[in-house]
Formats: sequence, C-alpha cells, structure tokens
Amino acid sequence: MSDCIFCKIIKGEIPCFKVYEDDSVLAFADINPISKGHILIIPKRHIENMWEATEEELVTVMRTAKKLIHAIKDAINPEGVAVLQLNGKAVNQVVMHYHFHLIPRSEGEGKLSMTEWELIPGNMEEIKQTVGKITAAIK
Amino acid sequence: MSDCIFCKIIKGEIPCFKVYEDDSVLAFADINPISKGHILIIPKRHIENMWEATEEELVTVMRTAKKLIHAIKDAINPEGVAVLQLNGKAVNQVVMHYHFHLIPRSEGEGKLSMTEWELIPGNMEEIKQTVGKITAAIK
Repeated sequence: MSDCIFCKIIKGEIPCFKVYEDDSVLAFADINPISKGHILIIPKRHIENMWEATEEELVTVMRTAKKLIHAIKDAINPEGVAVLQLNGKAVNQVVMHYHFHLIPRSEGEGKLSMTEWELIPGNMEEIKQTVGKITAAIK
Repeated sequence: MSDCIFCKIIKGEIPCFKVYEDDSVLAFADINPISKGHILIIPKRHIENMWEATEEELVTVMRTAKKLIHAIKDAINPEGVAVLQLNGKAVNQVVMHYHFHLIPRSEGEGKLSMTEWELIPGNMEEIKQTVGKITAAIK
C-alpha cells in the first residue's frame, strides 16, 4: 500500500534496523522502543490485521518470533519478554499493517504497563453465554 | 505439573468454560476476564514460556488463535482484539504455564490499558547496537 510506512520499509524506501528477513516476513527494531530490544515482525504482504492474514503468514510470523525470542535471550538476556499484537484502532493499533511486537524487559528498566492489570472475577453466567456463542461460531 | 492450575484444567480436575480443544492445545475462557470474550489458548504439555515451546506447539497455538479470532468476530463482533502472551514473572506472567490471550474490546467497554503507551523516540545508536547483537545471535 503506497501510503503505508511499513510497506515503505519493506520496499527500502524508508530505512530500518533490520533484524531478520525471508521471502514473506521482515523483522526490524521499533524506533520508538518501549524497552531495549523491542522488535516488530511484519508480513511483507500488506494486511491490516489478523483477520486478513492467511494461516501461512501467521505461522511464518510465529516461527520467526520463536527464532527471535531465543536470539533476544542470547543477545541481551532480558528478565522477560511480552508478546503483543493489536488488531483494530479500538485497541490502539497505530500502523494499520499487521505487526507482532516482541518487547523484552531488562533488569533496571521500568515496568511494562501492558503486562499489568487487576484480576477481577467475572460473571460466570455471562462468560458461559459468550463462550457458547464463540464455540458455535468456530469453523 | 501437579501444582499447575492450567494442568489441572487440562486433566479436568478443575472445570473450565472450554472453547476449543485438540490433541495438543486447549482454549477456554479467562474467568477473570479483562473484557467480554477474553480467551486463553494453552499447549497441553506443561511448558512455562515461549522459550520452552517447540515450533509445532507454537504453530498449533497460532492456528488455533486464527480460528478463534474469526469465531470471536462472528460471535460478538468486537471493535478490536489484542493478542498478548507474557514470558516471565518480570513481565507479570502469573500462571507459569504458557498461555496466549485473545482480548476483545467491544463498544462501550473501557480502554484496554495494555494497548496504550506513549511513543518516545529511541536512541538510534543504542538501537543499532542492540539489533547487531540480536541479529548475530539468530540461529
């Protein structure tokens, strides 16, 4: 897509700190990193989100993530890594080209806000009903 | 693992609202849901995190996630879905059995705190050095 910043990175029209590349995915450093070693993995085809992705694209992203999370451990040995992938402006997806975040947290770095939330017990009847709807919709 | 709550769910010793199951993964509702339709996908083998997972397990989780994100859309039509998976206590992993969250956000629900952060430009030299280390460590 001509006005997509990630498509421009893929085409080499905008530079990036490349970490990994194959025929169908590119991995590079987020230049507004939440933490040291913050990496994005994107499919080369312009797809907005997980709903538009093929199974093959998602599997390739996951295989790449596996490769990179081990490399991140070997290279910078963080205390943990959060995996995050946002689908939709309503969940604050900013660049509308599917991207899979690997967000390490190293010792001495601040807490990652996305990894903390209060555990509030849900309404069991509502959960049951929603699960029923989702289960019925599985293809 | 005998004292793992997710292993007990897999064995049926603790009930769950099951969404999907096959030979190697189980998907069920989070009973402390962050939002309506909050689902967890777990491998049946007890592994703590992504570093301990085989490629096959991760690929199966991703294939299941694809199936379920479409079912979630068809069933409850959320405005967006956040995918989150935490590796390590340092990033607030609470249950030490690998789990992949699908967190829908429906209209009228509050914002999801994990999806929002301030964009702060990074130090380009530091990013370059870290990328160099990670790239060199890819196997």
